[in-house]
Amino acid sequence: MKIGIIGAGRIGQVHARAVAASPTAELSLIADPVPGAAEALAARYGGSATTDADEVINSDVDAVIICSPTPLHAQQVLASTRTGKAVLCEKPLAASVEEAEQLARDLEGLNPRVMVGFNRRFDPSFAAAKAAADRGELGQVEQVSIISRDPAAPPKSYIAVSGGIFKDMSIHDLDMARFLIGDIAQVSAVGLNMDPELADTGDFDGAIITLISADGKVATVTNSRHCATGYDQRLEIFGNAGSAVVDNLRPTAMALNTADVSAAREPYLDFFLDRYAEAYSLELDAFLAGVAAGTALSPSVRDGVESLRLAVACDQSARSGQVVQL
Amino acid sequence: MKIGIIGAGRIGQVHARAVAASPTAELSLIADPVPGAAEALAARYGGSATTDADEVINSDVDAVIICSPTPLHAQQVLASTRTGKAVLCEKPLAASVEEAEQLARDLEGLNPRVMVGFNRRFDPSFAAAKAAADRGELGQVEQVSIISRDPAAPPKSYIAVSGGIFKDMSIHDLDMARFLIGDIAQVSAVGLNMDPELADTGDFDGAIITLISADGKVATVTNSRHCATGYDQRLEIFGNAGSAVVDNLRPTAMALNTADVSAAREPYLDFFLDRYAEAYSLELDAFLAGVAAGTALSPSVRDGVESLRLAVACDQSARSGQVVQL
Amino acid sequence: MKIGIIGAGRIGQVHARAVAASPTAELSLIADPVPGAAEALAARYGGSATTDADEVINSDVDAVIICSPTPLHAQQVLASTRTGKAVLCEKPLAASVEEAEQLARDLEGLNPRVMVGFNRRFDPSFAAAKAAADRGELGQVEQVSIISRDPAAPPKSYIAVSGGIFKDMSIHDLDMARFLIGDIAQVSAVGLNMDPELADTGDFDGAIITLISADGKVATVTNSRHCATGYDQRLEIFGNAGSAVVDNLRPTAMALNTADVSAAREPYLDFFLDRYAEAYSLELDAFLAGVAAGTALSPSVRDGVESLRLAVACDQSARSGQVVQL
Amino acid sequence: MKIGIIGAGRIGQVHARAVAASPTAELSLIADPVPGAAEALAARYGGSATTDADEVINSDVDAVIICSPTPLHAQQVLASTRTGKAVLCEKPLAASVEEAEQLARDLEGLNPRVMVGFNRRFDPSFAAAKAAADRGELGQVEQVSIISRDPAAPPKSYIAVSGGIFKDMSIHDLDMARFLIGDIAQVSAVGLNMDPELADTGDFDGAIITLISADGKVATVTNSRHCATGYDQRLEIFGNAGSAVVDNLRPTAMALNTADVSAAREPYLDFFLDRYAEAYSLELDAFLAGVAAGTALSPSVRDGVESLRLAVACDQSARSGQVVQL
Repeated sequence: MKIGIIGAGRIGQVHARAVAASPTAELSLIADPVPGAAEALAARYGGSATTDADEVINSDVDAVIICSPTPLHAQQVLASTRTGKAVLCEKPLAASVEEAEQLARDLEGLNPRVMVGFNRRFDPSFAAAKAAADRGELGQVEQVSIISRDPAAPPKSYIAVSGGIFKDMSIHDLDMARFLIGDIAQVSAVGLNMDPELADTGDFDGAIITLISADGKVATVTNSRHCATGYDQRLEIFGNAGSAVVDNLRPTAMALNTADVSAAREPYLDFFLDRYAEAYSLELDAFLAGVAAGTALSPSVRDGVESLRLAVACDQSARSGQVVQL
Repeated sequence: MKIGIIGAGRIGQVHARAVAASPTAELSLIADPVPGAAEALAARYGGSATTDADEVINSDVDAVIICSPTPLHAQQVLASTRTGKAVLCEKPLAASVEEAEQLARDLEGLNPRVMVGFNRRFDPSFAAAKAAADRGELGQVEQVSIISRDPAAPPKSYIAVSGGIFKDMSIHDLDMARFLIGDIAQVSAVGLNMDPELADTGDFDGAIITLISADGKVATVTNSRHCATGYDQRLEIFGNAGSAVVDNLRPTAMALNTADVSAAREPYLDFFLDRYAEAYSLELDAFLAGVAAGTALSPSVRDGVESLRLAVACDQSARSGQVVQL
Repeated sequence: MKIGIIGAGRIGQVHARAVAASPTAELSLIADPVPGAAEALAARYGGSATTDADEVINSDVDAVIICSPTPLHAQQVLASTRTGKAVLCEKPLAASVEEAEQLARDLEGLNPRVMVGFNRRFDPSFAAAKAAADRGELGQVEQVSIISRDPAAPPKSYIAVSGGIFKDMSIHDLDMARFLIGDIAQVSAVGLNMDPELADTGDFDGAIITLISADGKVATVTNSRHCATGYDQRLEIFGNAGSAVVDNLRPTAMALNTADVSAAREPYLDFFLDRYAEAYSLELDAFLAGVAAGTALSPSVRDGVESLRLAVACDQSARSGQVVQL
Repeated sequence: MKIGIIGAGRIGQVHARAVAASPTAELSLIADPVPGAAEALAARYGGSATTDADEVINSDVDAVIICSPTPLHAQQVLASTRTGKAVLCEKPLAASVEEAEQLARDLEGLNPRVMVGFNRRFDPSFAAAKAAADRGELGQVEQVSIISRDPAAPPKSYIAVSGGIFKDMSIHDLDMARFLIGDIAQVSAVGLNMDPELADTGDFDGAIITLISADGKVATVTNSRHCATGYDQRLEIFGNAGSAVVDNLRPTAMALNTADVSAAREPYLDFFLDRYAEAYSLELDAFLAGVAAGTALSPSVRDGVESLRLAVACDQSARSGQVVQL
């Protein structure tokens, strides 16, 4: 399958590597408006390069992976679909709920084959926890806890255009909550300002989110823009017969015992490129397999819309101090 | 030091055992209105028995441990103080915030020596986590997570008179939150009804509580009336330089590896008598030492009042869907 | 049951405390030739004091706990038995195999009630591992690994009279090996001299022991006189259907995560008084219960003899470089 | 760098995959006498195919990876060196110590660039433990423990031609022992026959090996041909200031808590293809980098000779019951 990539930034590089390693995909064309960016990526992983995203959309590739800035997502998903391409679009699906909903309407009748890049659904550890729940080993699922902390805050310049912590960072966790307890009926969120350096961004640098599903299950999300020990990514699914817990990953299985500590492991894997390397690869496999088989792609456009809706509800709740009903 | 105990029920037995094991305390008199209950306890751990609590209050004991039903707490604390006794009163301090506040006012000027039985503050593992924070090893404390799940729900008859999950069960966790992040400015709580068997009690059997301190720290409490693996008692203190995590305790340090699992530990210690046995003993030590030295007793009457105030705020928030400002 | 203790040193204190805490035993008389030693112990845990061991042997106590220097063990066990007392004798049973065998012969026909103090058999974690094996959860037991390292070497003056590392330290592990794989047919041992400070003692300060049972099971013992992280006491039972592993114990269930380490636990419990506190208590319970019920006491005199025989075989193998057949 | 592979069996496939994934190596030619075997591998990972190993040796490839049966190793290493190729030879280096020593002599003066495939030296976890020791974090290294158990025994037909457990299986651990404590002065080994099914092979299916280095350090190796929980691969380096421990790897970081167990992980990774996938890749990287830079390749021919010598000494010790001095 011939693959085009739009956007040669950090996440575009992740996908380019995954495509290069795939036995069934071929990296055909990469676009990035920054001069030289696409070339550099193509030199490393194969394919041609361009500065014009439309060249990818109008090329003969079978599928497009969209890694461009968020404001461009919706139009590129739609254009790629109109030229018959399958699409793997990075999260969030669009810059606003309205735009995402408009995209969903625009795609109707176009036989869209669109998958949204919530890569964590494909993480082997999270997937194993969900599989245990799906097999009934935990009984009735009742409480889910998601901890998600970045190792360090992004630059203030990024925060300014990020859309806010809920759309930028929590959205992964909000999708994970929906993945595990289904559609959400009620949201309450608390925003935190922990780092004085970031106080003047107007954004929160931490959050506590409580989500209640239509059938009374609860998921809590704990976010922080910083974590001294690394990229803190944990999950707990609690059911009335048991629980599944996903701990952080470390670089090795080595532990140290000294006069000061025992069983001390290394800090967590530093960030998502390491922590979710396997998830990105499995995500691509699922995309390629789904496109090849013509089966429904998941996470879907609707998942992309709903996660955005939750992010907006979180922001609304955090700023109003009110529970938001959906 | 001569000790009297009022109430020979489950928690009275815990204290009687701790007193009997203490090298500096002597169990002198036990009262319980149930015929034979105090006698049985005295036969096992020493001292005399009576069915009349006032006999303890008017005896020559140096200190009274109050393990009676909650509605009797306030009056017994006051009466014991008036007869010059030091008091260790089980939680909650009173049946209502109003009653607790009235008690606090009544005690003024009486030179009260009253400690409230929030035993978990004395648990070696929780205390080690707090000590790490106090030593600055975690940097600035920002987020605290408390998980507290009982192994199984009490009888419905108990739930009916329990005062509700927040006063009955969460109150321990609310005190722990105050212990770790200080006075609370804002509370939001979600009540859960997970077990259909308990739906008609009018009480929740689970809760998610978010507490914000006056200086912007956050604590979350996750409660459940049941947990298949045992008494789930965990704590995490997250600071900007590190975190301290307290895992559950097991009966032994043994793990099993089979064709199905690896590193499998035994289920958690079943309930508070086992899990907090050492905490109860250390609590008594602290009480005896404080009384002997004439130093301030902690947790204090104010801690008892504030934890009740938080429990009431939780109930209010859970039933209204509104954040409660304190 | 009235208990006498001979020897008020470190291990005598352990037993005195256990007796004092027991609901069915009463500390009656303590003997130690060091002026004041027995008095100090009696003042703390009850009973009378003497400097003459024979007073204990000839007193009206029901049972004697022998905590005297090893050369006195055999004669005191025999004398106590002759005056009708039950005996709990600290390890080793005697100063030499020959003396132990002579004791065993001397006890014949005297209806001896003698237990040897291999306390580790009563450790809840080791006992849980053995129970898993006995229940068949591990399948056929094939390989046992015992790691036993002291936190720091004893004074050279002690080493000089200790009887050597195998009789003094390994003997606990040799008994544990017999406990787990049965009588031993073949021994090979390597002695190590790791700490140059101890090189001139003529004793080893480390050892690797390989024991083969009559039916082909193997146990390995790894010993060291020092361990920077604390008292390293681990066990692994490997069977063809699974394995049971006992990790070290720590003071609390707290772990730290910082920029340098994650999941770091505290160092191991420092030494046997903490690590095996529960084992000593359960050992006394078993002794008291066995004496009361008139059932066979275990570990038995034969266990005491065989462990000594193994210690001697280890020394012989380590010094000759030859496998020793038993 | 153009790579040729001799042998398209299980281990040849591992190397072919690693070469295909390497950015600096190109799979050029594969040889295997089994019709179709080399073709199948070439079809998957690239390059041409032949049934004649000499074609690889005489081709224009820069380096040869030798994955043929052991009896062919020595002659193919020599022939490849004579045609100017760098060589990565799978372990063992030769079928006997004599053959390996002859090879070492034959290679003298030929400017050999030969690396022996002891892949475990490149495992990130084992390497991290060694790095901690090399940095001095453990103080003086004193005792090393290596546990190495296969998930299940190979077919009897394989055992018959395997050269025996020490050359076939333990050799990896013997090299690891040398890697960690240096050249070995003394070997004692015990062979075990645990599985009655394998009793008539004339080979052991388990072993306990004790190795003493010239400077008095000790390493123990515990081997078994079977392990119900998976591929049991652990390491412990004990020094006088601390220890480094490598635990088994699991497929995910997920753990289960139920009414029966807590913190239960999945069984260990099943076998070397999964457990050492990263090690094989890093081994190839080291080989390619060393060849490109012209630096000494390690593990060296001498490492290959010495590990064989140790395997023979183990067999001799196990069959004679004598310690073997080297």
